[in-house]
Amino acid sequence: MTRGLFITFEGGEGSGKSTQAARLAAHLRERGLAVVLTREPGGSPGAEAIRKLLVEGDTARWTGRGELFLHFAARADHVERVIQPALARGACVVCDRFTDSTMAYQGYAHGLGREAVERLADVCHPGLKPDITFLLDIPVEVGMKRSGLRDSAENRYERMPLEFHERIRNAFLDIASRDAERIRLIDASADISALEKIIRLNVDEMLVKHSGA
Amino acid sequence: MTRGLFITFEGGEGSGKSTQAARLAAHLRERGLAVVLTREPGGSPGAEAIRKLLVEGDTARWTGRGELFLHFAARADHVERVIQPALARGACVVCDRFTDSTMAYQGYAHGLGREAVERLADVCHPGLKPDITFLLDIPVEVGMKRSGLRDSAENRYERMPLEFHERIRNAFLDIASRDAERIRLIDASADISALEKIIRLNVDEMLVKHSGA
Repeated sequence: MTRGLFITFEGGEGSGKSTQAARLAAHLRERGLAVVLTREPGGSPGAEAIRKLLVEGDTARWTGRGELFLHFAARADHVERVIQPALARGACVVCDRFTDSTMAYQGYAHGLGREAVERLADVCHPGLKPDITFLLDIPVEVGMKRSGLRDSAENRYERMPLEFHERIRNAFLDIASRDAERIRLIDASADISALEKIIRLNVDEMLVKHSGA
Repeated sequence: MTRGLFITFEGGEGSGKSTQAARLAAHLRERGLAVVLTREPGGSPGAEAIRKLLVEGDTARWTGRGELFLHFAARADHVERVIQPALARGACVVCDRFTDSTMAYQGYAHGLGREAVERLADVCHPGLKPDITFLLDIPVEVGMKRSGLRDSAENRYERMPLEFHERIRNAFLDIASRDAERIRLIDASADISALEKIIRLNVDEMLVKHSGA
């Protein structure tokens, strides 16, 4: 059996990742493919318990280093119990955030460095990398306005200062420039249906290559 | 100001670590020293929240890799918020379990390997190592009998099979043999007061060297 495609969505708050991930999953299901739609931090019972620690409470609740390890703890559980088994049985996995988010938030914005994140990723999910990643880029003010419409207890990150979100945006752009083959930079200020089409085209093309290989 | 001594206790279930750590802390306080008595996983509010995830629930709740990252997440918080500040202000830190436990449980018994644990330790607490570690060694059956006397919800590790605890004991012995300068191997089947005296002598000797340096 061919291993399934591993597709991830990345971007700052309010970039529309979750919406696009859900629409892509629906499209792939319509094409008759098995799909697991999931998200990080979370995606498995253990990882969701860790997510609660990360997204609730005071913005200063964790140090950058504490967050770094918590994100990888959640990811270890999610990868071993959900992502790897799904890919192995031939399902496509569509995931809202993955290791690029940890690189942007903890590696860049919290200043822990690229090397620390790469080392932990090597221990957490050796040999596993997304086949394709969509980075939904949007000006910080626009994204914050969109995500501000949500009323949620899970808003520890949204409450960080604007300047923090600017650093996140720049971090993602740098990460994308270092891996342009895998990471598709998408202007997320375009309208939702236009974005959906661009993403669909990229994935359909990838599926042709993947099944032909 | 001289940095305080960092003293850790290691060993399997029922080896008497917690009792000996408390007695040593009392002895050091009697000598007029500032002491922080603490434990892992835990020791800070964030780390205690992570501890709950680790010590409660089904024995198969976490994969070895998930546990590995959770222990280092708790440790990152504990080190940055409790251990480092205490050492910096000249206090002695007496800690019940530290990174040697992660090496024994996740590195050896769960088979994740020495290198994975060493890599994560380097990111979690760069440059920090205990000045002296007491490994309280005891036959598994004796230790299990002692710890079985405790009635606690926090017994996820105690419920692991005997063979697992044998692997832990051998792991600690191997870890100690690789760092005989730091790790003092103590026969914990001796009586409590005799153990207390041996530990006290070792620490008093270390304090003379430490203040004279």
